[in-house]
Amino acid sequence: MATKNMIIYGGAGALGRHLVEHFKAAGYSIISVDRVENANADKNVIVLQGQALFFVLRGKHPVINVAGGWCGGNAADDKFVANVDLALRQSVWTSAITCSLAAKFLKENGLFVLPGAAPVLDGATSGMIAYGAAKAAVHHMLSSVSTKDGGLPEGAASYCLAPVILDTPMNRKFMPKADTTKWTPLSYVAEKFQCWVEKPDQRPKNGSGTVFPDNP
Amino acid sequence: MATKNMIIYGGAGALGRHLVEHFKAAGYSIISVDRVENANADKNVIVLQGQALFFVLRGKHPVINVAGGWCGGNAADDKFVANVDLALRQSVWTSAITCSLAAKFLKENGLFVLPGAAPVLDGATSGMIAYGAAKAAVHHMLSSVSTKDGGLPEGAASYCLAPVILDTPMNRKFMPKADTTKWTPLSYVAEKFQCWVEKPDQRPKNGSGTVFPDNP
Repeated sequence: MATKNMIIYGGAGALGRHLVEHFKAAGYSIISVDRVENANADKNVIVLQGQALFFVLRGKHPVINVAGGWCGGNAADDKFVANVDLALRQSVWTSAITCSLAAKFLKENGLFVLPGAAPVLDGATSGMIAYGAAKAAVHHMLSSVSTKDGGLPEGAASYCLAPVILDTPMNRKFMPKADTTKWTPLSYVAEKFQCWVEKPDQRPKNGSGTVFPDNP
Repeated sequence: MATKNMIIYGGAGALGRHLVEHFKAAGYSIISVDRVENANADKNVIVLQGQALFFVLRGKHPVINVAGGWCGGNAADDKFVANVDLALRQSVWTSAITCSLAAKFLKENGLFVLPGAAPVLDGATSGMIAYGAAKAAVHHMLSSVSTKDGGLPEGAASYCLAPVILDTPMNRKFMPKADTTKWTPLSYVAEKFQCWVEKPDQRPKNGSGTVFPDNP
């Protein structure tokens, strides 16, 4: 059996760590790209936040980007401009880098995922404008790269991960009173991704924003 | 008659220069913000591309951002990541800065404009992915700040300028064979803006992407 490789950008975050463990257990060799090392990954590439990333990979890989972060506030927030910078670095920069990686190193018919967010699909996000604008850019970037002329290899399957709220320790800490039964478990995301990597016939429509858990 | 002030971000570009001249002739005092001086403006604030901008203004002003630029290419372009950086600086950074200015210095019921682009309203832009993603962020930012809780002063009228192609010398140079009768004249944009500044009852719906010249 050939080695199964995978690149996970954001491999040291809550969802990224879960994905690394999940795919390691399923026999994959993982390159984690993040600001800190994930000792469980087979290889690590450490980058500064939003740093451009260029390395020469051997072979072809699925490319999953689950880098992210969140910041709130509207245009009157004194930190608004700084928040836009932060949100762009967290989501749009990492998406640009992974698009570029995917164009050159994605497997034919391979899986490509960018980190979107369900709330922006419904329009305005006045309580988190910087975050929403950055995620809107990511969704638009994904819809563009998923077209025939977007630059990805033939048959690539591209999705924007768009959970409403992921069930992470951080989200539980900051939303202690929330109804977590409506949150998306990390294991759900991992199982979906593995299914889509391994069973192309079960993939959703190429280019979709995949809203978890309602219409996966 | 009270002094009529206006902030034009991108006041040294093709459209910006036209707006400065137009509003000067209409009796406005103009602060141009751009990377180079516009000697026709009453005051200039020179910034680096995408530089955050903080100054203390006296009084309240309409805020019009027509900063921009264009770059093409899909995810396979070797300059893709650099193009994303460029497009974010040109459009999203300047929009973040003008949102922050508008939250603090926009007149009550004042006009606020961000630089969008009509093609992104229709979805994917595979031939200009970086540009499209940046403009999608701008449109989303505009839709968010235009809501009740977006942070702008009461009654603000916010629009995303969304021309298909503006009739500028640069566009004529790079598209010598295009049918320029379908392009939007700069004078059309200037007259619309003046109308919206001075006649609130003639403004389109707050928060809209104003596609020129079809549905201004």
